[in-house]
Amino acid sequence: MRSFKGRDILSLKDFEREEFFYMFEVAKSLEHYARDRHNGDLLKDKTMVTAFYQPSTRTRLAHEAAMHRLGGHVTGFADAKMTRAGDWYQESIKDTVHMLEYYGDVIVMRHFQQGAPAEAARWASIPVVNAGDGWGEHPTQVLTDLYTIWKEIGHIDGLTFLCIGDMRMRTMHSISYALTQFDVEVIYVSPPDMSLTEEFKAELDERNLVYEEAEHVADVIHRADVIYMEPVVQPDYTKARQEATEDRGLTPDNYKITRQLLAEKAKGSAIILHSLPRMDELPPDVDFTRHARYWQEAFNGVALRMGMLALILGAID
Amino acid sequence: MRSFKGRDILSLKDFEREEFFYMFEVAKSLEHYARDRHNGDLLKDKTMVTAFYQPSTRTRLAHEAAMHRLGGHVTGFADAKMTRAGDWYQESIKDTVHMLEYYGDVIVMRHFQQGAPAEAARWASIPVVNAGDGWGEHPTQVLTDLYTIWKEIGHIDGLTFLCIGDMRMRTMHSISYALTQFDVEVIYVSPPDMSLTEEFKAELDERNLVYEEAEHVADVIHRADVIYMEPVVQPDYTKARQEATEDRGLTPDNYKITRQLLAEKAKGSAIILHSLPRMDELPPDVDFTRHARYWQEAFNGVALRMGMLALILGAID
Amino acid sequence: MRSFKGRDILSLKDFEREEFFYMFEVAKSLEHYARDRHNGDLLKDKTMVTAFYQPSTRTRLAHEAAMHRLGGHVTGFADAKMTRAGDWYQESIKDTVHMLEYYGDVIVMRHFQQGAPAEAARWASIPVVNAGDGWGEHPTQVLTDLYTIWKEIGHIDGLTFLCIGDMRMRTMHSISYALTQFDVEVIYVSPPDMSLTEEFKAELDERNLVYEEAEHVADVIHRADVIYMEPVVQPDYTKARQEATEDRGLTPDNYKITRQLLAEKAKGSAIILHSLPRMDELPPDVDFTRHARYWQEAFNGVALRMGMLALILGAID
Repeated sequence: MRSFKGRDILSLKDFEREEFFYMFEVAKSLEHYARDRHNGDLLKDKTMVTAFYQPSTRTRLAHEAAMHRLGGHVTGFADAKMTRAGDWYQESIKDTVHMLEYYGDVIVMRHFQQGAPAEAARWASIPVVNAGDGWGEHPTQVLTDLYTIWKEIGHIDGLTFLCIGDMRMRTMHSISYALTQFDVEVIYVSPPDMSLTEEFKAELDERNLVYEEAEHVADVIHRADVIYMEPVVQPDYTKARQEATEDRGLTPDNYKITRQLLAEKAKGSAIILHSLPRMDELPPDVDFTRHARYWQEAFNGVALRMGMLALILGAID
Repeated sequence: MRSFKGRDILSLKDFEREEFFYMFEVAKSLEHYARDRHNGDLLKDKTMVTAFYQPSTRTRLAHEAAMHRLGGHVTGFADAKMTRAGDWYQESIKDTVHMLEYYGDVIVMRHFQQGAPAEAARWASIPVVNAGDGWGEHPTQVLTDLYTIWKEIGHIDGLTFLCIGDMRMRTMHSISYALTQFDVEVIYVSPPDMSLTEEFKAELDERNLVYEEAEHVADVIHRADVIYMEPVVQPDYTKARQEATEDRGLTPDNYKITRQLLAEKAKGSAIILHSLPRMDELPPDVDFTRHARYWQEAFNGVALRMGMLALILGAID
Repeated sequence: MRSFKGRDILSLKDFEREEFFYMFEVAKSLEHYARDRHNGDLLKDKTMVTAFYQPSTRTRLAHEAAMHRLGGHVTGFADAKMTRAGDWYQESIKDTVHMLEYYGDVIVMRHFQQGAPAEAARWASIPVVNAGDGWGEHPTQVLTDLYTIWKEIGHIDGLTFLCIGDMRMRTMHSISYALTQFDVEVIYVSPPDMSLTEEFKAELDERNLVYEEAEHVADVIHRADVIYMEPVVQPDYTKARQEATEDRGLTPDNYKITRQLLAEKAKGSAIILHSLPRMDELPPDVDFTRHARYWQEAFNGVALRMGMLALILGAID
């Protein structure tokens, strides 16, 4: 297996089967820091640079928390408005990276433009982690998802995934690439205007992913071991939350997982993952079912990033 | 006395008399870090999550400085715009907390909505500190105020407080609740449209606080041992500072403490506290009188938060 | 030589010849932390307060990275919008400083108003570093520039500087003041409306700086040992980068350094410094010439700030 030391984490296309499991094992071995709530010092002589050209809470803070749990340091920016580099008119990624690479030991980049982290990695002398790039990929989110499945179910092979959401989104890209490394089936359910592109389907075919598309979750949920969700609607920012909350029925039933649907049709062992935040596709009363695992993801997201950072920074080999 | 370990700091209604003094003693025992300007390592294995849905300088930085002085780590967000969680339309406090609770060991929350920190504490597995919630409360500010009085005067019982400002404000709520635990008198002076609400008066009566209301500071200042101030006017953001500064007379004399008034009518031993920033209710030349203690509050604010964090994180019992 | 311990770094007018060299030696002795990519603990018991009233990436992160490399802590704000103190209407520098001084051991301030860091230093009990103040000065940038020259060429005396840009800018002020301490010649090239002010010329004359002004870089570049550049145009924010990039010819040839010009007329040993970000005055293909040293500046910027912070915080004497 290739060493992770010094490696960029840009896409899950890059990952091979045993690499997933190895990273999961390392994450698990570090989990006690998060569980017992104390910081160690494995990365105390390392600094992470967060270069977030768009605001994010979960992704940025999960990386920062992981770094702190291992005793490390963090610098960077949380929003393009906090930085002149954020002004895309003004500075090329190359120029920006030839500054950031001297400010720490790993760059974690969220960018509105697909491919920006890969462009950064081309120029950087230190590893670059893609924390979400436009419509591109979101590898650390999907590594967290798969880590959660591995911990909750014990294996990934043999599972059927029901992926619901906007198939043009980066998480859907990353999970699809990742699943080509496992013996699984995938069922995609999305609104017609958000379905898999022909181009992406060709890629999945080339990689021999076993998948199909369906129109309504109710038709296929009985087969699912993992229900993997994203919103299909965007919040209406012109309305107050109160108003928006009352304005029900935003998400069509086709793309919604309700308590009733789960009780009537889902396997008792099926688990639900959601990268959050959510709209109304996943009503809050689902939180109290045996299926919900999305909050465990927050915890697992820190552990996974601890493992990943320890590996690419060479603290664990 | 109840242990502080693991406790939320949401309201000063919760505090009992001896708890104030115990926290003050602990703060004092840690003050040397701030005074001698060196960081220790009492909290080096802990991480604080700052969840500031509104910008703040004093409150956020005082908590962060306290954490750093004890060798701890800090992550979080300084403004709702830096976070998708800040978008109130999008995510419930419950969902947000079931993420933040895994990123550190204590959450310090400033929120524009009254009750948000209490809602957070309901769901969080780690302590939540209310760093100001809308019109609600601001317990750490008032703990700092009382700590300052305790250090400067040596006791709280027996003092007369003159509270000037907008009585609907969170600091006024917190100090009023706090003072019910001591043998003091309170005189409130505020513009009529900013006076104590009937509802709040009923609460104070129920708690047997000895208080009265007055119209003009000049009528009552001679009785005050502690002059506790807040602005009654808001800055006019349509004007440049220069212009605003020249445009005198913003604050009516009723709610203003001047050097002349102090010299003519105040007790020599009276001290002035102000949570700052100020408008023209407290002219800069008061800074040079024997009464000013508001700058000591910045120093004391770090010490108090050191004590509070060490206690709720269980580093000192 | 005066000790650096406790000193403010406000202007390069304050610096004497041997003080530059001493700071460079200290920076060099700490450079291995940045080169070997590990954090030490020289400043682990110190906290830096970043008070950035305007966003900046290079300057803020270079200071933060330096602090982290020496094991130190960082708190503060990256933008005036993150802080109520940023609201110039509301709070005087004096009031703000009498808060910030208790949150750490050194204040690094970027301010839109010339003189604000000096005003801060007047009131602060801890050192203040000017990280750029309006049209004023930018001493740490120019210390980085001179450190780069000292490392690359081995000496400063005897060199001819070609300074291109807007001569009213703070970096041009700081480098001009600094160069009065060395045996050098300076040639200034700027658009007529951005030339040296009469007032500033009088100051340079009084300090016996040997300088001249020229109209076109092509006329003088053959004499330059150091080509020191700043943009003379501002980005057009109404246009997308794509568009702006295509819209060539923004910067007149007079103020532009091209690969062709370098090949035809420059000394082989001439080096180019640019504080970045750049517009089209320095086309990207110059990056691959023997002259480019601007990316080394990012690395050197961290080392220089490590040296400066270690000195003013008294960790190295």
